[in-house]
Amino acid sequence: MSAPGAPADPAPVTGGVFAARLRRAARAASDAGLAGIVVTPGPELRYLTGYVPVATERLTMLVIPVDAAPSLIVPKLERPDAERAASARILRIVDWTDGEDPYAAAAPLLEPGRHAVSDSTWASHLLGLQGLPGEATYVSMSTALPMLRAVKDAWELDRLADAAAAADAAYRDILGVRFAGRTEADVAADLAAFLRAHGHAQVDFTVVGSGPNGASPHHEQGDRVVEDGDMVVLDFGGLMHGYGSDTTRTVHVGEPTDEERAVHELVVRAQQAGFEAVRPGVPCQEIDRVARAVITEAGYGEYFIHRVGHGIGLTTHEPPYMVEGEETPLEPGMCFSIEPGVYLPGRFGVRIEDIVTVTADGGRRLNTTPHEMAIVH
Amino acid sequence: MSAPGAPADPAPVTGGVFAARLRRAARAASDAGLAGIVVTPGPELRYLTGYVPVATERLTMLVIPVDAAPSLIVPKLERPDAERAASARILRIVDWTDGEDPYAAAAPLLEPGRHAVSDSTWASHLLGLQGLPGEATYVSMSTALPMLRAVKDAWELDRLADAAAAADAAYRDILGVRFAGRTEADVAADLAAFLRAHGHAQVDFTVVGSGPNGASPHHEQGDRVVEDGDMVVLDFGGLMHGYGSDTTRTVHVGEPTDEERAVHELVVRAQQAGFEAVRPGVPCQEIDRVARAVITEAGYGEYFIHRVGHGIGLTTHEPPYMVEGEETPLEPGMCFSIEPGVYLPGRFGVRIEDIVTVTADGGRRLNTTPHEMAIVH
Repeated sequence: MSAPGAPADPAPVTGGVFAARLRRAARAASDAGLAGIVVTPGPELRYLTGYVPVATERLTMLVIPVDAAPSLIVPKLERPDAERAASARILRIVDWTDGEDPYAAAAPLLEPGRHAVSDSTWASHLLGLQGLPGEATYVSMSTALPMLRAVKDAWELDRLADAAAAADAAYRDILGVRFAGRTEADVAADLAAFLRAHGHAQVDFTVVGSGPNGASPHHEQGDRVVEDGDMVVLDFGGLMHGYGSDTTRTVHVGEPTDEERAVHELVVRAQQAGFEAVRPGVPCQEIDRVARAVITEAGYGEYFIHRVGHGIGLTTHEPPYMVEGEETPLEPGMCFSIEPGVYLPGRFGVRIEDIVTVTADGGRRLNTTPHEMAIVH
Repeated sequence: MSAPGAPADPAPVTGGVFAARLRRAARAASDAGLAGIVVTPGPELRYLTGYVPVATERLTMLVIPVDAAPSLIVPKLERPDAERAASARILRIVDWTDGEDPYAAAAPLLEPGRHAVSDSTWASHLLGLQGLPGEATYVSMSTALPMLRAVKDAWELDRLADAAAAADAAYRDILGVRFAGRTEADVAADLAAFLRAHGHAQVDFTVVGSGPNGASPHHEQGDRVVEDGDMVVLDFGGLMHGYGSDTTRTVHVGEPTDEERAVHELVVRAQQAGFEAVRPGVPCQEIDRVARAVITEAGYGEYFIHRVGHGIGLTTHEPPYMVEGEETPLEPGMCFSIEPGVYLPGRFGVRIEDIVTVTADGGRRLNTTPHEMAIVH
């Protein structure tokens, strides 16, 4: 059921789209010199097959050889569910029964040579595969095929834009609530409720970092009571219709000091500079460098202690990463965060984050709420 | 905040308990001939340190050498959170910064030799460790140290008993709702609400398998409308105060047929037989064999297509597994499900599940609602 004002459920992805994604994955693997791809439950399995079981100790695994049809290995008791997946018709489904060795069921499907394995595959499953006789070896998907899901199609861009618009609506709502005298956890609960009211099925994080807590970038929220005079970092997101949102704004309770205002404006400028650097062909690390340069030149470089951004899609953190050393060139359809920050230990933090997509000649923000420091009460 | 009637929040686990668990883990690793233990975010990290970050592409990793103090590797931006963990005082905290190689930060902490790695560690992280120079190798925790968390202490048994009592209360509530004419999803939503009302912070599954859907053991719930005359499998659980619940009862809408009644009674007898076999020293597989024998002797063996049980604790599925081939002897304090079932494809399924703990001279059920087939409307 959708919330009032939230977009209606989109049409589902069909078997034809999954068939095309599976073919493209096999081609990409072949181009990368791989023998195949191995995928367990998680975003890659969902992207390639539409099948969404829970990742557990029981092995479910998609095997895509570069030159044969893909197979899906499932526990026998989950076979009926697997057969209902939108891609079931184009997959060979192989089952195994409790008490059998599931890796032995996988062995005949694995060709000699390197296989990309989905990052979030359990170590116990990878070790099971590595223990098989045969000459299959493994490398992480983010190393071998990092960009498999990085370029979003039009349907996916619509989903990401919907999720961003819902997060923006939640931000506008939160500006109207009381901050001073309530705990971070209280404000975070409001944020989560607003995200859900605007259509999010899942809330992944609601950072409310007030005063000194804002200087710890991954502080979630706690029992600190927000006070008049606090800077407050609000970083929130989750999943709507299966796609991620992630945005940050930093607000102030009552009037800020000159220094607080200056640091906030610095971060806004860094975010803007990163955004303006976005265009096809630019290496990912350049977005980090450009935004970081603004902060470093102002003398705050040592207080910007994380990369400037990460990709977003079926998850809220995925390649491409906007980080020093990542030389992959941007392509139209890539979606990622640009989120510089300054963290002054024991005092306060500021971060500004938008999701941006690469267009033919630049970038487009999916988050569109103002960057200027909102004053809350 | 607790629901009315739900137990109050228990006293938290203290640093001293974590210190003892860390020492015991190192001793168990040494006894198993390991060089150390490697743990990433998940139940093992929570058990050993009380630290609960989200598992992501950024490496957080506890390293426990058998003969040195444990270290915790964290992303720099999460260091302040790690320092607030109850065990922080007894851990050496090492951080790494975005753009650095996190595995290089881990390298000096890893001794030559075999390390147990937590099962749910991401494959990308394991591959990063395997790519380091040095002579550390890896084996899954469930292979090398499966019983590290299997024996619960009195505090943990209280938590599991509380969670089971809450699940039982939810079962009593669900018997009062309307089944016929509503979808499985509607009934499942009621079950989830009852679990939350009785104190569950997280609902992990609410299986409502009506009629033929009950014959697919891991069917969750769908838009099938429950009808008069349906057998309905209800399998539900989640986490309360951090510990798992998991119970199954099979109910009937209106009057059952003689065959439905006979199959239900058969599964009750199998569950009872499995329960009566529980005592210290009995191999895990014996519980499966005893329950399975009852069903096989009645001619339904081919329709019981899964192991009879799994451990439960900080997660709802963990060692020890009650499955053919698992020869580990039961010990007092172990907790696991006993959940035989019969699944007649296209027709109906029956499963009965209690959580049981091993006592000095037998077993004790943590779920105590009646096994007899409840008639719902």
